[in-house]
Amino acid sequence: MTSIAMIEAAAARLKSHVRRTPLLSSPFLDGIAGRRLLVKAECLQHTGSFKFRGGWSAVSALTEEDRKRGVIAYSSGNHAQGVAAAAKAHGAPAVIVMPADAPQLKIRNTRDLGAEVVLYDRSGGESREAVGARHAEERGLTLIKPYDEPLVIAGQGTCGLEIAEQAAFEGVTRADVLVNCGGGGLSSGIALALEARAPGLRVRPVEPEGFDDVTRSLASGQVQRNSSQSGSICDAILTPQPGEITFPIVSRLCGPGVVITEDEAMRAMALAFLRLKIVLEPGGAASLAAALFHGDQIEGDAVVAVATGGNVDADLFREALTRYA
Amino acid sequence: MTSIAMIEAAAARLKSHVRRTPLLSSPFLDGIAGRRLLVKAECLQHTGSFKFRGGWSAVSALTEEDRKRGVIAYSSGNHAQGVAAAAKAHGAPAVIVMPADAPQLKIRNTRDLGAEVVLYDRSGGESREAVGARHAEERGLTLIKPYDEPLVIAGQGTCGLEIAEQAAFEGVTRADVLVNCGGGGLSSGIALALEARAPGLRVRPVEPEGFDDVTRSLASGQVQRNSSQSGSICDAILTPQPGEITFPIVSRLCGPGVVITEDEAMRAMALAFLRLKIVLEPGGAASLAAALFHGDQIEGDAVVAVATGGNVDADLFREALTRYA
Repeated sequence: MTSIAMIEAAAARLKSHVRRTPLLSSPFLDGIAGRRLLVKAECLQHTGSFKFRGGWSAVSALTEEDRKRGVIAYSSGNHAQGVAAAAKAHGAPAVIVMPADAPQLKIRNTRDLGAEVVLYDRSGGESREAVGARHAEERGLTLIKPYDEPLVIAGQGTCGLEIAEQAAFEGVTRADVLVNCGGGGLSSGIALALEARAPGLRVRPVEPEGFDDVTRSLASGQVQRNSSQSGSICDAILTPQPGEITFPIVSRLCGPGVVITEDEAMRAMALAFLRLKIVLEPGGAASLAAALFHGDQIEGDAVVAVATGGNVDADLFREALTRYA
Repeated sequence: MTSIAMIEAAAARLKSHVRRTPLLSSPFLDGIAGRRLLVKAECLQHTGSFKFRGGWSAVSALTEEDRKRGVIAYSSGNHAQGVAAAAKAHGAPAVIVMPADAPQLKIRNTRDLGAEVVLYDRSGGESREAVGARHAEERGLTLIKPYDEPLVIAGQGTCGLEIAEQAAFEGVTRADVLVNCGGGGLSSGIALALEARAPGLRVRPVEPEGFDDVTRSLASGQVQRNSSQSGSICDAILTPQPGEITFPIVSRLCGPGVVITEDEAMRAMALAFLRLKIVLEPGGAASLAAALFHGDQIEGDAVVAVATGGNVDADLFREALTRYA
C-alpha cells in the first residue's frame, strides 16, 4: 500500500533525475475556462510523459541482483519509454511488451532507448498481462506493472508533491486537479500526495468517451469495465477497467470523473500549441479539454490540469492544427 | 549603460511575474549534436517569448505619470506581445507598431492583449522608427525600443542569470551559449549576466543566412548592414543592422556568430516537437539548429541553446512537421 512516506522516499530517489515540470498558464485559456487555469506540463518530463517518474521509482528500488537480470513492462507507449529510460540509466536490461497498433513514435523511441520491444495484438489473442508474465518467468525479469504497483504509484505521486508546492506558490489552495486516467496510477499517486500536503486540492479523473470505466465505477461504487480496449486516439489512457490497487485509493480520495470527447482533446491540443507552446498527445490533453470545455462540472475559482504526455505522431498533431489552430 | 546591478534590479522587479523557464534536454538531441545539449525553453515564457522580460523591465521602471500616458513599441511581434502584456498588467495604455507582413498570430495576440496595433509596410515608405517616433510625440507616449534600450537589455539579462544558475546545477561551467540574434538585446543582456555570474559561459549569436549582420560585423570589427529587411521565415530576428548600444557589448563579450539556413531552422522545429515537446518558431529555433547542425563551429563537451520564442503560425509549423518529423 502506497503511503506518503513511500512517495517521499520515491521523491528522494528521483531527485536530480526527474525534471520539475513547470505550471503554465495563459490569460487566453483562463478566458475559455472561465476561471484561473494552471497546467502542469508533464509532457516536458524526461521521455515526454509522467511515466518516467514511476519507472524510475520502481527500477531504482530493485536489488542489485534483480537489476542485473533486468525488467519487463507492458505498455501502450509512455510507461514503456519511462521504464526503458530508467532501466538504461541504471544499467538494467529492459523488455517492453507493446500493442502492435501503438503510435509508431512510441515504439521507435522505446527501441531507441535501448529496450527490446515485443509486439502483441491488442484486439485478440493473448492479453498483454499474459505475454508479460510469460516473458518475465522465462527470463527471470522483474515485471514493472504500469499502475497496479505501489512503487509506481509512489513515483507518480511525486508529481502531486510538486503540484502541492507550485499551486500554493500561485496562491491556489482549493481547486480541482484534473488528471488523465487510464489504470489510475497517476490519479491515485497524486491524490495520496495531495491528501497529505494540500488537502484543499482534489483529484478529478478525466477519461475519453467510450472508455470511462473509472468515471462509471466511481458513480456506481462498483468496478465497471470498458466494452472496448482500442479505437480511441487517447491511446495513453485506455485500460480495460480500474486497477485493483489504484481503484480503492481513487474511490476514497477523488471527486467524480469527467468525460471528454476525442474532438475536445484535439481542440485542447491545438490550444496548448497556440497558448502554451507545448506539444500534447490526445490522452495527455484530455484534462485540459475537461478544464476548457466542461467547466460546469468543475468547482472553484481555479483549476489545475495535469497535461500528462506529449508523445504524439506528427500526422495526428498536424490534423489537430488543421482543424482547430 | 546596462550593468549587472541593473540586471539584478530588473530581476527583482520581475520576480514572481516572470516564469523561470526550464532547461530541457534529450539523449536523442545529444546524439545529433555530438555533445551534451541544454535547451533554455523561453518559448514557455509569458507571451511565448523572452521579450516579456524586457517589456516588463521597462514598463515597471516608468514613473506613475508616464505609465498613465502609456507606452509605444515597434516590433515584428514578440516584443509587441511582451510590451502589451506588461503594459496591461501595469494599467498602462499600449500602442504597438507592427509590420503588415508579421505572422497573423502575433498581430492577433497583440490586439487580444489590449494593445492598439498600427501596421506599416516593411518593404517601403516610412521606417518603423519614424512611425514609432511620430506616434510617441503626438500622444506623449514613452517609446520602448526593442533592443537599444538599457532597461530592455537588463530585462533580457535576467534570462542569463537563470542560465548561469541552471547550467551550474547541471554541472556545466564552460560552454558556448547559442542565442538567436536580431538587434542583440538578448545576446548582450545574457552576455553581461554571464560575464558576472558564469564567466566560463560565452554567448554566440545565431542568425539566418542572408540576415547575418551581427556575424559579419563581429568578423570585420565594423558595423555591417543587411541588404534586405524581410523575406525570411525567421521574422523574429530580422533587423537592419546591429544596435548602437548592443553591438559594443556583443563585440566585447561574445564569440563569433553562427549562421544557419531556413531549412535547418525548420528541421530544428521538428526535432523540438519530437524530442522536447515544445513549440518553436523559426527564429526561436535557430540556436537549436546551430547546436544540432553546426557543431564543428562550437567548442566544448556541452552547449546551451536559448530557444527564444514559439509564436509560429499553424501553417508553417505543419509544414515543418510534414517535411522533417
